[in-house]
Amino acid sequence: MKTEEVTPIKVEKTAGSRIGEVDFSKLTFGSVFTDHMFVCDFKDGKWQTPEIKPYQPLVLDPSARVFHYGQAVFEGMKAYRDEQGQVWLFRPEENFLRINKSCERMAMPAFPEDYFFDGLRTLLKLDEQWIRGGEGNSLYIRPFAIATEPSVMASPSSEYKFIIICSPAQSYYGGEVRVKIADHYSRAASGGIGSAKAAANYGAQFYPTSLAQQEGYQQVIWTDANTHEYLEEAGTMNVFFRVGNTLLTAPTSDRILDGVTRKSVIAVAQSRGINVEVRPVKVSEIIAAAKDGSLKEIFGSGTAAVINPIAGFGYKEEKFELPQIDNSYASLIKKVIIDIQYNRAEDLFGWRYKID
Amino acid sequence: MKTEEVTPIKVEKTAGSRIGEVDFSKLTFGSVFTDHMFVCDFKDGKWQTPEIKPYQPLVLDPSARVFHYGQAVFEGMKAYRDEQGQVWLFRPEENFLRINKSCERMAMPAFPEDYFFDGLRTLLKLDEQWIRGGEGNSLYIRPFAIATEPSVMASPSSEYKFIIICSPAQSYYGGEVRVKIADHYSRAASGGIGSAKAAANYGAQFYPTSLAQQEGYQQVIWTDANTHEYLEEAGTMNVFFRVGNTLLTAPTSDRILDGVTRKSVIAVAQSRGINVEVRPVKVSEIIAAAKDGSLKEIFGSGTAAVINPIAGFGYKEEKFELPQIDNSYASLIKKVIIDIQYNRAEDLFGWRYKID
Ligand SMILES: Cc1ncc(COP(=O)(O)O)c(C=O)c1O
Ligand SMILES: Cc1ncc(COP(=O)(O)O)c(C=O)c1O
Repeated sequence: MKTEEVTPIKVEKTAGSRIGEVDFSKLTFGSVFTDHMFVCDFKDGKWQTPEIKPYQPLVLDPSARVFHYGQAVFEGMKAYRDEQGQVWLFRPEENFLRINKSCERMAMPAFPEDYFFDGLRTLLKLDEQWIRGGEGNSLYIRPFAIATEPSVMASPSSEYKFIIICSPAQSYYGGEVRVKIADHYSRAASGGIGSAKAAANYGAQFYPTSLAQQEGYQQVIWTDANTHEYLEEAGTMNVFFRVGNTLLTAPTSDRILDGVTRKSVIAVAQSRGINVEVRPVKVSEIIAAAKDGSLKEIFGSGTAAVINPIAGFGYKEEKFELPQIDNSYASLIKKVIIDIQYNRAEDLFGWRYKID
Repeated sequence: MKTEEVTPIKVEKTAGSRIGEVDFSKLTFGSVFTDHMFVCDFKDGKWQTPEIKPYQPLVLDPSARVFHYGQAVFEGMKAYRDEQGQVWLFRPEENFLRINKSCERMAMPAFPEDYFFDGLRTLLKLDEQWIRGGEGNSLYIRPFAIATEPSVMASPSSEYKFIIICSPAQSYYGGEVRVKIADHYSRAASGGIGSAKAAANYGAQFYPTSLAQQEGYQQVIWTDANTHEYLEEAGTMNVFFRVGNTLLTAPTSDRILDGVTRKSVIAVAQSRGINVEVRPVKVSEIIAAAKDGSLKEIFGSGTAAVINPIAGFGYKEEKFELPQIDNSYASLIKKVIIDIQYNRAEDLFGWRYKID
């Protein structure tokens, strides 16, 4: 008989749940958190006993390295409740593997797989009431790791915290999204950290994104920093272009996040017989396609919204509107993925992960 | 009569100084801090009343944006005590201007000039005993600002903390420094945040630097991310190359930090009749100069060590040693700068700033 080793997690339950104070019909993304959090400290060269405790502030020395050198990584994933009340995750092994890839690039220690999954399961069971059923409802899960050694030496920290916090989320419709194609600012360098989900990649985009917003766009589609000729990805989404009946998306590289939704979109599209080309996509070919009418759709893919259709884009002085179309690939693929996420369809790809 | 407005800083003094516990002859850089810290909160769209209080941990929500999106900037400067006991700063206006430039690039609010200087002066007067006289002794000053809004929305925070902490420092000789010239990894993209002193730029270097260390180097000299053909700067230093009797250094750009020491080195060198060329420096020309014997010196410039001579460098499979020379520019220029810093020489450039 196989003995299952279970991670010894120290659990301290909250004295009273805050759930009664929360209006689940009026949630702002990422600002309300569940009753508990998972915390594991790295020191003396190893990860210590993980703990689950009431959601509470972190107490850190002002010299903790995360404040000074941005040594920090994160993940974003979601839990969904199906019509029978069962809770599911979507491809969490991908997030686990990716956070450890991010850790490696940021010179941070890898987090153990059993701590991650046992922690996640225990936390989700404890805060189960926070996961609401119904279309669009989910629990956004934010694992992250930060450098905590109290010293401003510019070198990798010897101490870290790995934390998981959870925030209830509704489906969010923020209006039509128009994007600006970057022609000056950039997100990531070749040989840089663009393919890591490192904190550092995000703050860096806020200023150029705010400039784009002043021009009336909601987001930026980043191009390669060398030439600005190739389309890469958006701030928190990979990007797909439908030209004729072909779906185009940039290959992953050390500048582009290898999105879980992106690879799911590719798999679903291919399983539906849609031709997908994963290859460098030129700004000029998309503009030419917009002009000759063969550009049918642009959409972003990411955990937050699964698929985010894009209504128009701007490049330098020119603005383009996408056509209204029936049978969009965006809607088709989104439906397949969310039906899997909510356990309304057969899990042909083996993507669901049961929480029990 | 001119009325001087003085910033209303709330001062809470420590109940007992920790200075007695500190061995000033055995200081590790950046790990012992003085008795007090300066803290100013940004909320409701403005900077609140600054406070000086006993050095103490920060208490932050786990969702504070700095942990997730690296929205954080910092500065590094030093206070020196002269032989008469007077305390001086070196070109602090440069650090003030630079942190606000960094804030702009990171979509953070500018910090007011009077808060910065009044805070600095009040803090240094309070912790005066921590500033030791004598060659090489100084107080390292670390102003920094972090995004604190408790929400994981990927957008600029609406709340920040601006903090100043101080750490006594000795002159540090870490042995001979050999550097690796980057040929794959990179520090900054054109259109990125390389010229900001943003936390994000530092953690990103730890991993490639650790790879270089495994090959026997102490640091990396970064090259342009596009071609790796041009020398840019080191992790926390700008870099100078002496070929014949000419000093070469890269021009600043949006990829390179505009170092205070760098511009001081250029001014001192020029005042001594040394020919300085600020222009793109090719890796190939430095290697050619190393081979034909015209490469005399390489040194880094930065607040921490002022000038850091480099003993050798590696590029791909080749290794080069710098010659031992008399009358090095590094020693000459370093002496001029530290004599100004310690008030042992006339302040011809107007660089000293008196704390009284
Ligand atoms: C930069 C970036 N690209 C793409 C994505 C989409 O990745 P995923 O589908 O794994 O959520 C994200 C994360 O949400 C991201 O931060
Ligand atoms: C990337 C980088 N380059 C250069 C320098 C040198 O700048 P300064 O002379 O202002 O200390 C620093 C800071 O110390 C730095 O972080």
